[in-house]
Amino acid sequence: METIALVFLDVLVIIGVSRLIGIGFRFIGQPLVIGEIVAGVMLGPSFLGLISPQASAWLFPITVVPLLNVLAQAGLIFFMFLIGLDLNPKHLKGQGDLALLVSHVSIIVPFSLGIILSIFLYPLLSSGEVNFTAFTLFMGVAMSITAFPVLARIITEKNLQNTSLGSLALTCAAVDDITAWCLLAVAIAVVNTNSMIAAIPTILFAAIYVCLMLTVARTLLQKLDAHYERTKKLSQSALALIYMGVLGSALITELIGIHLIFGAFLFGVIMPKNEDLMREISLKTEEFVLIFLLPIFFVYSGLRTQIGLLNSLELWLISGLILLVAIAGKYLGTYAAARAFNIPKREASTLGWLMNTRGLTELIVLNIGLNLKVISPLLFTMLVIMALVTTFMASPILDFIYKKGTVKLVKF
Amino acid sequence: METIALVFLDVLVIIGVSRLIGIGFRFIGQPLVIGEIVAGVMLGPSFLGLISPQASAWLFPITVVPLLNVLAQAGLIFFMFLIGLDLNPKHLKGQGDLALLVSHVSIIVPFSLGIILSIFLYPLLSSGEVNFTAFTLFMGVAMSITAFPVLARIITEKNLQNTSLGSLALTCAAVDDITAWCLLAVAIAVVNTNSMIAAIPTILFAAIYVCLMLTVARTLLQKLDAHYERTKKLSQSALALIYMGVLGSALITELIGIHLIFGAFLFGVIMPKNEDLMREISLKTEEFVLIFLLPIFFVYSGLRTQIGLLNSLELWLISGLILLVAIAGKYLGTYAAARAFNIPKREASTLGWLMNTRGLTELIVLNIGLNLKVISPLLFTMLVIMALVTTFMASPILDFIYKKGTVKLVKF
Repeated sequence: METIALVFLDVLVIIGVSRLIGIGFRFIGQPLVIGEIVAGVMLGPSFLGLISPQASAWLFPITVVPLLNVLAQAGLIFFMFLIGLDLNPKHLKGQGDLALLVSHVSIIVPFSLGIILSIFLYPLLSSGEVNFTAFTLFMGVAMSITAFPVLARIITEKNLQNTSLGSLALTCAAVDDITAWCLLAVAIAVVNTNSMIAAIPTILFAAIYVCLMLTVARTLLQKLDAHYERTKKLSQSALALIYMGVLGSALITELIGIHLIFGAFLFGVIMPKNEDLMREISLKTEEFVLIFLLPIFFVYSGLRTQIGLLNSLELWLISGLILLVAIAGKYLGTYAAARAFNIPKREASTLGWLMNTRGLTELIVLNIGLNLKVISPLLFTMLVIMALVTTFMASPILDFIYKKGTVKLVKF
Repeated sequence: METIALVFLDVLVIIGVSRLIGIGFRFIGQPLVIGEIVAGVMLGPSFLGLISPQASAWLFPITVVPLLNVLAQAGLIFFMFLIGLDLNPKHLKGQGDLALLVSHVSIIVPFSLGIILSIFLYPLLSSGEVNFTAFTLFMGVAMSITAFPVLARIITEKNLQNTSLGSLALTCAAVDDITAWCLLAVAIAVVNTNSMIAAIPTILFAAIYVCLMLTVARTLLQKLDAHYERTKKLSQSALALIYMGVLGSALITELIGIHLIFGAFLFGVIMPKNEDLMREISLKTEEFVLIFLLPIFFVYSGLRTQIGLLNSLELWLISGLILLVAIAGKYLGTYAAARAFNIPKREASTLGWLMNTRGLTELIVLNIGLNLKVISPLLFTMLVIMALVTTFMASPILDFIYKKGTVKLVKF
């Protein structure tokens, strides 16, 4: 079969399998994304590669992987843009102080625990290609991720979005997202330069770029908004300009030395938050990106996840330890901060579990880490397992805490 | 710069340049697509490669071209689906007989002239990798293309869609489209097997597949329609199913031995023609495909167009001859058939010019021919020029025939 036809056969299989498993997971009350991540892992060496190495080699030969990656990366860039677009400053108001504190503590605790953990992991599991500082920073970030989009979906599916708890969780996750991306940008800068000091120019440039985007670019985009308000129609050329903005901004952050996804995300963040305009952009972009392109990213990621590498009890124990530290760090940090603000125990605890949702965001971070060779394929696999488990557990725990029929949320 | 970043830089340049030139051409009354095709040629060896070989080699190194091609082909597949989706049997009713005859004569004449022309061209310009029959068939098809989408855009832009002439032209173009794709499928089958006889199974399989799609698959899709009518909402999973159908159908026609695009087009044709459903599918698919993916196809095509190959007067004369035969064949065939139905001279003449619009469809056909090595890069370039000129001339000739203010269309 010709390579290009094989690419589309792969895409067909990917969309089909990830939808199927996604719908299966939905039946047990899980968000679609869990199924998509699992589907990605299953199409990789961890499952398909085990049960039929021939099928795996035929479907995903080495020549096809870079071609799939282009589609995956295009999906990722536009997905990050859409996430940024969804981030409405409205969400950040109201519970400002509370959310800011809870969110920051919920990052600092797992981040610190991640650093402590990496003292132990570095000699065992680092790829040996980066220094200790870079590895440590990266592990800290990997531990402290909360996935805003997955959390938002869980909260909506459980109908919590209009409760104090739901909106606090969303705000915290939004702040977490921004903080985590900043930390990751720093970590990437350090990895790329392999030293804290040498990373300073990169970080400085990134900071300047963010400032320019938040001021100059934002003001320019207000013109687009004004134009939209007059015509109430998003022309194809205007949308082309927006897509060019996404790509341009992504390329600038890549050039600065952080990563494509930051620029795309940032461009989404600075878009005018005009409800109609946002809806029209989403409507014309989201479905193709989410249905056609993004599942390819999950499989690209799954192709690199090799559960077979965990071939000894010792490695499984380490994997368990990472999981434990990740869960405990996020939970305790969130819980303690929430309690300090007098949030009732049950709600504080729920918040702790919710913030553990790492989902897709973690996967993005891990793939960057693997590309930059900060983490080895083995550690990558362990962290993918951690991301899966922490995302998977949110829904059932929520159901357990608020048993059906007895939902009576305390207003705080 | 990393390869993947370079891909997105290319995409950014491609979207920008094709929009810019497209808007420029719009100012002189040309459809956007002309500008996009020209932009593609300009970014290739015919212009950028001439004025700055370094910039060209840096922007489009050999490693990046296959990656761009994946995006281009994805764009093409979904574009063909959208064209098929747009093809409403409503358009084919009413002027049935008239349109059918005009359309078929408007294909037979240029097709025959193309065959005669290729007796002369085969020894001069064929790549020598296919036999005379395959070459001849392909040249016949290349001469007889009318681009339904471009024609539709011109007619809409000139506000002719509600006139007898406009609707006849659209119907003829739609019939032409279907006939041309069938002929191309036959030509590809002959090229792939390199003989008329050996191609029969392929053609048979293709015919069976088309029948199955028009009956079984169409009936199945009515269920989707019924479901849509009940819920009035196209869920993400339903759209995922539709996308899978597009890919699956494309892969089947590729496997049969014709080409990916046929299956995608066919799947669009058999979609239930429910206005709301069609609008929703288009809305969620069209913009991303047209803005982000399709321009990459034009550039991919432009990268293979080398006007520099026409380096002698003789070659330019041959190129002129091809152009002449293409225009005369299409014009005379259409004009004669229309006159036979007593259509007034002016309207018959307009129809003849309109049907000469070859646009994007011709480009798709030519790229397939080049890939299959039926035509050499030199002949490819000549035919691209022919496609450009025949598409370019439609608008000014229309303006000339119907001078502003004096538009008084005869009702027939």
